[in-house]
Amino acid sequence: MEEIDSPRGRVRVRDLQNNRVVWESYDQLLLATGAVPVCPDLPGADAVEICGVNTLQSGIELRRILDDRNPKNGIVVGGGYIGLEMAEALVRRGMAVSLVSRSPEVMKTLDPDMGHLVSQALRDFGVTLYLEETLIGFETKSGKITGVVTDRRSLPADIVILGLGVRPNTELAAAAGIPLGERRSIRVNELMQTFVAGIWAAGDCAETFHLVSRKPYYLALGTIANRQGRVAGVNLGGGSATFPGVVGTAVTKICEVEVARTGLQESELRELGIEWASAVIRSRTKAGYLPGAGKITVKVLAEKGSGRLLGGQIVGMEGSAKRIDTLATALHAGFTVEEMINLDVGYAPPFSPVWDPVVIAAREAAKLV
Amino acid sequence: MEEIDSPRGRVRVRDLQNNRVVWESYDQLLLATGAVPVCPDLPGADAVEICGVNTLQSGIELRRILDDRNPKNGIVVGGGYIGLEMAEALVRRGMAVSLVSRSPEVMKTLDPDMGHLVSQALRDFGVTLYLEETLIGFETKSGKITGVVTDRRSLPADIVILGLGVRPNTELAAAAGIPLGERRSIRVNELMQTFVAGIWAAGDCAETFHLVSRKPYYLALGTIANRQGRVAGVNLGGGSATFPGVVGTAVTKICEVEVARTGLQESELRELGIEWASAVIRSRTKAGYLPGAGKITVKVLAEKGSGRLLGGQIVGMEGSAKRIDTLATALHAGFTVEEMINLDVGYAPPFSPVWDPVVIAAREAAKLV
Repeated sequence: MEEIDSPRGRVRVRDLQNNRVVWESYDQLLLATGAVPVCPDLPGADAVEICGVNTLQSGIELRRILDDRNPKNGIVVGGGYIGLEMAEALVRRGMAVSLVSRSPEVMKTLDPDMGHLVSQALRDFGVTLYLEETLIGFETKSGKITGVVTDRRSLPADIVILGLGVRPNTELAAAAGIPLGERRSIRVNELMQTFVAGIWAAGDCAETFHLVSRKPYYLALGTIANRQGRVAGVNLGGGSATFPGVVGTAVTKICEVEVARTGLQESELRELGIEWASAVIRSRTKAGYLPGAGKITVKVLAEKGSGRLLGGQIVGMEGSAKRIDTLATALHAGFTVEEMINLDVGYAPPFSPVWDPVVIAAREAAKLV
Repeated sequence: MEEIDSPRGRVRVRDLQNNRVVWESYDQLLLATGAVPVCPDLPGADAVEICGVNTLQSGIELRRILDDRNPKNGIVVGGGYIGLEMAEALVRRGMAVSLVSRSPEVMKTLDPDMGHLVSQALRDFGVTLYLEETLIGFETKSGKITGVVTDRRSLPADIVILGLGVRPNTELAAAAGIPLGERRSIRVNELMQTFVAGIWAAGDCAETFHLVSRKPYYLALGTIANRQGRVAGVNLGGGSATFPGVVGTAVTKICEVEVARTGLQESELRELGIEWASAVIRSRTKAGYLPGAGKITVKVLAEKGSGRLLGGQIVGMEGSAKRIDTLATALHAGFTVEEMINLDVGYAPPFSPVWDPVVIAAREAAKLV
């Protein structure tokens, strides 16, 4: 699709197979243009050994380069989900792996104290971290990548993987005059309608709403895209559904370490002017006397005064991450940490200490609000 | 303690070491007398090879009998948590194990369709089930157990383990005129005060309140005892805490199968006169393409008309059971199944399909209410 003519209810479509342009009319139009990876506009960035991983095809191509050239030195730029997963994958292939990130710790969707645990897990796994360093260029020789330059050093590289995040793909919508919102995502209401009649949007191109801050929010995650897509589809099909918003839940696994977060983190609370108290507790994933009882660290953030739960973060061994769902559901409910103390969550020795780590953290936070 | 004299604020205590009786006065008295195992009043029930497992000491004694006599045929009577765990343990020791239960399926805290999955898992593990059969007696020879008699057959036995549940240990309280409630547990308010001034109760001897049925309830679980004990302790210590009640969550693991339940089950709803719809879905514990993506079955019950979540049950492989916490938290919140469709729970391939099985079940239930 090349152009949207909303007053006339039609779109210009390029038929790639027959190389011609046609105008198609519509009654209802759904924009699901997704997001595009952020790419640095730096000299050398077009070398074939510099790869983003955002589609199945880009993954297959990366795999082919790794298999064909058997590179020794891998540099990952970016400390988010994709960067960390790729760093792990390269180490498992026996490569020397360095990771460059502008943030003080990897996984900046966690508070730095919790992110530090993930940074440490990566180091233990064999990844060299260059934190608080900015990518400023690439070194190439005869068109082939040989190094990555940061504001503090030059690192030898046979392959570079970029995990710098994504931005909503909304040029088409913007050109059609459809109002944009957070980070230039397409503004939508609870029904997934844009603010232009007959045009809908869902997925990584669309804005969402944060149920804790009660403000518009942008978050490109498959879960949200799926839920938004369902709501748009139900409504387009003549049914009735609403998408109230998100609480910002995400989980991932890096090496053996499980990582989870939900709600608002300290940097967001600071920006929103919300005063908070936080509790960090260390516990076990199972009854302590059972084999395989792994470490788990849980952080809970609550509003000063009201005690309202604001967010939570978890870093720990097997059985840690999905505990975030209890905090996420409590955020949906608007619970205070005091109300969470007697949450009737499940206990048996293979699954938890008698007091679930999430509840322990809420209980500690309740003492501080 | 042998007697409570509440008008005078004193208790009669037998000093077992010096074999004398003393009256001790109190300002505040906490009853934490727990529960006692249900024992059938049947001839032969006092044979040493007939064991309940309710204290650390009884577990040690059972272990000693197993080690010393190396019995071949084990019979477990009762299909609850203890019965199932013991059946598993005996099979792992290489014994021939049969389980007798009056219910149509083991684990009667699940609806029969979900309990059936657990019955099947036990059979697959090598336990012979005799369901809908009632224990009517024991066979002994020279004081040693040789068999178990049900209303339908006689089974050879070298050892019998009773897992027939517990009842609150409240004779002392009853004798003192302290009002009892559900199943003769001690009636308490939210502060854990009994209805006699200065006397408190907590744990397996105390009643609780069901937050879904909004009625008094009795449930002897360590989690509840712990939470009640904390509330009683805080209040006795001059602080302020309340125990609002439970939603009836329990989890367990039988062989490789994880089992979880929360809220009201069909038999309870029938008794309460609540009309319900239920959805049962089959999904996976991880993204389907990942190694180790195990089967999971989730049942969700919701009120007809209002759509209010009433309960849920889960049977599945590793990573299944603690998903019940999402349903438990939603029960605390009073959510409808419609409100659960867009719960922002965590997704990543090692942890879940994009739509969490619990959310899929809620979504299906929402179509039926």
